Amino acid sequence: MTNVDFLLVNANVLSMDEQFHQYNPGAVAVSGNSIVAVGSQSSLEFEYSSDHKIDCGGKVLMPGLINAHTHVPMTLLRGLADDLRLDVWLMGYMMPVEREFVSPDFVRLGTQLACAEMIRSGVTTFNDMYYFEEDIAKATAEVGMRAICAQSVLKFPTPDADFFEESLEMARDYIKRWKGHDLIIPGIAPHAPYTCTPEILKACAALAVEFDVPLHTHISETAFEVENMRRDQGMPVVPYVKKQGLFDAKVIAAHCVHIDEGEIHTLKHYNAGVSHNPSSNLKLASGFAPVKKMLEIGINVGIGTDGPASNNDLDMFEEIRLTSFVQKGATGDPTALPARETLLMATRMGANALHMGHLTGSIEPGKRADLILVHMNPLHNTPQFHHDPQGTYAQIVYASKASDVSDVMVNGKWLMRDKELLTVDEDAILHASQEYARKIDTFLATRETSLLSKLLAIGGASEEESFEIQAKVRVKDLQPIIDKLTSSESEIDVLKRRHYKEYDVYFFFPDVEQGIIRYREDDFIGADGNVENVRGRLTLIGPTNEGQFEQEVLLSRSRYLAPATQSLRFYREYFKPHLEKEIEKDRLRFLVRFEDTEFFINLDEIHNPKIGCFLEVKSRTWSRQDAEIKSQLVTKLINFLGADIDEATSEDYIEMVR
Amino acid sequence: MTNVDFLLVNANVLSMDEQFHQYNPGAVAVSGNSIVAVGSQSSLEFEYSSDHKIDCGGKVLMPGLINAHTHVPMTLLRGLADDLRLDVWLMGYMMPVEREFVSPDFVRLGTQLACAEMIRSGVTTFNDMYYFEEDIAKATAEVGMRAICAQSVLKFPTPDADFFEESLEMARDYIKRWKGHDLIIPGIAPHAPYTCTPEILKACAALAVEFDVPLHTHISETAFEVENMRRDQGMPVVPYVKKQGLFDAKVIAAHCVHIDEGEIHTLKHYNAGVSHNPSSNLKLASGFAPVKKMLEIGINVGIGTDGPASNNDLDMFEEIRLTSFVQKGATGDPTALPARETLLMATRMGANALHMGHLTGSIEPGKRADLILVHMNPLHNTPQFHHDPQGTYAQIVYASKASDVSDVMVNGKWLMRDKELLTVDEDAILHASQEYARKIDTFLATRETSLLSKLLAIGGASEEESFEIQAKVRVKDLQPIIDKLTSSESEIDVLKRRHYKEYDVYFFFPDVEQGIIRYREDDFIGADGNVENVRGRLTLIGPTNEGQFEQEVLLSRSRYLAPATQSLRFYREYFKPHLEKEIEKDRLRFLVRFEDTEFFINLDEIHNPKIGCFLEVKSRTWSRQDAEIKSQLVTKLINFLGADIDEATSEDYIEMVR
Repeated sequence: MTNVDFLLVNANVLSMDEQFHQYNPGAVAVSGNSIVAVGSQSSLEFEYSSDHKIDCGGKVLMPGLINAHTHVPMTLLRGLADDLRLDVWLMGYMMPVEREFVSPDFVRLGTQLACAEMIRSGVTTFNDMYYFEEDIAKATAEVGMRAICAQSVLKFPTPDADFFEESLEMARDYIKRWKGHDLIIPGIAPHAPYTCTPEILKACAALAVEFDVPLHTHISETAFEVENMRRDQGMPVVPYVKKQGLFDAKVIAAHCVHIDEGEIHTLKHYNAGVSHNPSSNLKLASGFAPVKKMLEIGINVGIGTDGPASNNDLDMFEEIRLTSFVQKGATGDPTALPARETLLMATRMGANALHMGHLTGSIEPGKRADLILVHMNPLHNTPQFHHDPQGTYAQIVYASKASDVSDVMVNGKWLMRDKELLTVDEDAILHASQEYARKIDTFLATRETSLLSKLLAIGGASEEESFEIQAKVRVKDLQPIIDKLTSSESEIDVLKRRHYKEYDVYFFFPDVEQGIIRYREDDFIGADGNVENVRGRLTLIGPTNEGQFEQEVLLSRSRYLAPATQSLRFYREYFKPHLEKEIEKDRLRFLVRFEDTEFFINLDEIHNPKIGCFLEVKSRTWSRQDAEIKSQLVTKLINFLGADIDEATSEDYIEMVR
Repeated sequence: MTNVDFLLVNANVLSMDEQFHQYNPGAVAVSGNSIVAVGSQSSLEFEYSSDHKIDCGGKVLMPGLINAHTHVPMTLLRGLADDLRLDVWLMGYMMPVEREFVSPDFVRLGTQLACAEMIRSGVTTFNDMYYFEEDIAKATAEVGMRAICAQSVLKFPTPDADFFEESLEMARDYIKRWKGHDLIIPGIAPHAPYTCTPEILKACAALAVEFDVPLHTHISETAFEVENMRRDQGMPVVPYVKKQGLFDAKVIAAHCVHIDEGEIHTLKHYNAGVSHNPSSNLKLASGFAPVKKMLEIGINVGIGTDGPASNNDLDMFEEIRLTSFVQKGATGDPTALPARETLLMATRMGANALHMGHLTGSIEPGKRADLILVHMNPLHNTPQFHHDPQGTYAQIVYASKASDVSDVMVNGKWLMRDKELLTVDEDAILHASQEYARKIDTFLATRETSLLSKLLAIGGASEEESFEIQAKVRVKDLQPIIDKLTSSESEIDVLKRRHYKEYDVYFFFPDVEQGIIRYREDDFIGADGNVENVRGRLTLIGPTNEGQFEQEVLLSRSRYLAPATQSLRFYREYFKPHLEKEIEKDRLRFLVRFEDTEFFINLDEIHNPKIGCFLEVKSRTWSRQDAEIKSQLVTKLINFLGADIDEATSEDYIEMVR
């Protein structure tokens, strides 16, 4: 009799090995961090003895689940914002909050919360990508879970680095320190092809190769990403990253929703693992990944929850079920992805996808003891049929819940016994998490109190407060003014002339004191009449005029300007206006010198709605005295141009429309 | 102060009323079976007192969930068979087992099991369709849940009726007895347009109108159903059932996956309610229902689990989440079906879909007290943000689980307190359910032991054991034999002549003693050379020859014949053969009289694989003596036809191919 540390008996053992051996009643012998033997109870009881002989009460004993793609600290952002488009969710909520809050303390707590939730749902191994990854690794190792912790690298500033070189250096040091750890496999995570430069992708691949660690990235999550790549690079995403040498490394590619058969063959050729993330892909409407096709071609496809901020939980039982459901639904074939094959993706194949199949994913002698016990006859999984040997797999995939997991062992050590977590202080985590949520609530509530802070929160908004002296006069016809401006004997010196089509969308809000947001698309029209250049500008127009001079000459309202880097749709969903109005106009814009003072002259023809033609004269100002002088010059200039100052209006075009 | 039976305080109350009032801290006052008041805690504590003042501990207090379509007794068939196509699942497993086991006792137990599971997951009302529906109503009322229990009517024999007239009569008596019950609304359920005749649909509608009870049916679940309807009736399903007067009744239409915009308008016009069943539609690969479109047009769409045999549970939290996920995924719009709108479908709108919005579905004074408490800060739903008033809905839809429901009240009576079921004996139900499963296992295991019993189990297989005397001779050319047979001076009298193309698929199994299944498609070729008629025949060919006579004349193996009413694909998935072989041949078949004895003569040319031409002579026989005599006659006939009896073979064509 060989003595072992643990002898688990009276279990329905699903080994998930190559032959899908099932032993019922079965047993597993564990010593140190590893599985010593698996087989029928009688054979193991004959061969092994243990001071810790554990009666599994007929439960299923199976390999722990592998969560193949996640961002664990984002548990702390769970439910922060939902039902939004990816860009609004990411740039309107996640990134501003991350910029403000993500720190070593944040990721440590978020990791603890995630680990507690994952252990409760039978996960023993996960594959992570986030910031301050070494702190995540520490927290994970302390809890006792197995993980790939891959340090993010992006071309933008991140919470843990101002430049990508810092991220890379940090990753190198971290990988050196953790390489060879019993639980943690350090890795590198160039976030995605569209958030990294070719230089970053190459450097990450080189680092991964140098230390023989996995490279974790996002590939082809949305159709938009693929369209952009095809437009800019003339190829889809997989060939592009191949060109950057990514596949020299052991790649784990998350999502792969929009890849074609050629790309699947490339992934297969380079033995890249894929993580399929069905909840995330559905909730963010990314599409239906070609999982069945990937499996047919022989890729190791694992299943991941993605970050809990976009899911909104870390429940692998739901992901497994959904993987099968969605493939059946999307292919129209109810026999697609049957239960056993789907469960395989979350165990042995998932481990292979993470390039750690030699360590975990099945119950086989020599592999690490990553095991879970699942209660098979709760109310929602009653009764059980035994006529079909596939029945147990179907029960787990189609009816088991995370709450049916009672016991979890990782690396030969119990992390949960009889639903009690042994290595985390659940109450302390819950309490600390709520404290973070209160701080984030306050931050967001403050932001939501003003349009200005909302505008600033999405970044890029340069706080350009501009004061102008301006007057606008309705005119019947623009041609006489144009003639006057361009006449060679004019007292006006034209410094610049431009032609634009301007499409303005105004967002109105219930609190008028907040002002109005204007989204302007400026199409610059060239000499040949074609659009030469398009730019977007976002302006927060203050609610009040600062002062009014004689004859409707205004000292303009305050404005905050920002280049509009996002789409109109983005801003619409982000600012959630109460009301929208549109104005389209043709604008001839002149920069002129008149009596030694520079003015902008706009000759506007408003097409939509048809409210007529206008002459607008503007000049920047910096003092009240300057404004007084300029206001008189403006009146003079208007008269000179033959327009009638009595036709002046203090209304913005948008006010005429209302 | 008004005294009430229960005053629930310290709750986050989601009323789900028209204005989506939310009170936090809120309170609800209940007296008798009804809600007396809902509002802020302070206002209700000012107005109401109670001996049963209940501190809800900050949990969400919301209307109980509405399961808009299910077949509750099928809990007992949960996990019986999975990953199969609808027809194989239904006709290969569900129907044979139902024929054998469904009884008043079965449905009572199955209902109790279902009710226990549904209470645990926060369901207070469900809409059922099954057999022995009065027994389901009884069991439900005893447990204390609210339900529409609709008696099934089909054109086929059912476990509770041999003819549809019986079902209708039973339904009428049942409706009379239960109409006006405080918890149960009796109803009628013509199963589906394709399982009912127009006469049945009309009679059901008339009965529903006569008693003003709901009519529950399946509409357009699969594309196949719609194709057939268009082919046979020249219209899709909704206009067809409209033509049968179905919409005179208060209709609840389950599925509506494949309906067009016109049909949606028709459903809206007649105020039909729809039940969307996302798990079932995905798992059976039925398709993606146009839920967003139905909601836009104004239909009341509820959410249902469908029967637990095709789901495999009754978890409305999963269905709600999936409803939102699938619409986002299928429409490509992540803002589709946001949390609040989706939760509405499972509460007030669901009740409206069941034509019982006046009774339940929201927390409003006067409605029945159907309430649940949901724990909002378990690990998997931590932390909570409060900056967005939609946040609570999102938390429930995207992260809450059935196991977070702690308390359930129906009709003013507690059914669960602090996760303890008060009106069902869970252990007794679990035990009795397992006993049923054992019996069903035995039944299926017995069936699986022989091909014959598997063939008989799917019904329609007439147990025609046939014995023939037969001889088969290889010939070079068939024409001389044809000439001889059709020559007017022949001693052979040709009684009948037919020309067939025969396509045979043989299924082989590891246990050769079981025999071989042959699926034959017989194309009858008319005088003009065109196919006039096609029939399918299924034959179980016994494994051994019963006896061999001189010169390879055989007393043939036993055969069981059945018309093949299902597709080849169905039989393939049902019998799961180890190996398949195909044979295609051209057959001229003659019925002749020779020496006062009738024989069948087959002149076969085997096209695929090309194994040559054969003359086959057969005759039915009934005794050994008769067989002896005929075997001699057969030899004589073969000689007469100019073939060489030395070329005789005892092999079946399929054996030559192996």
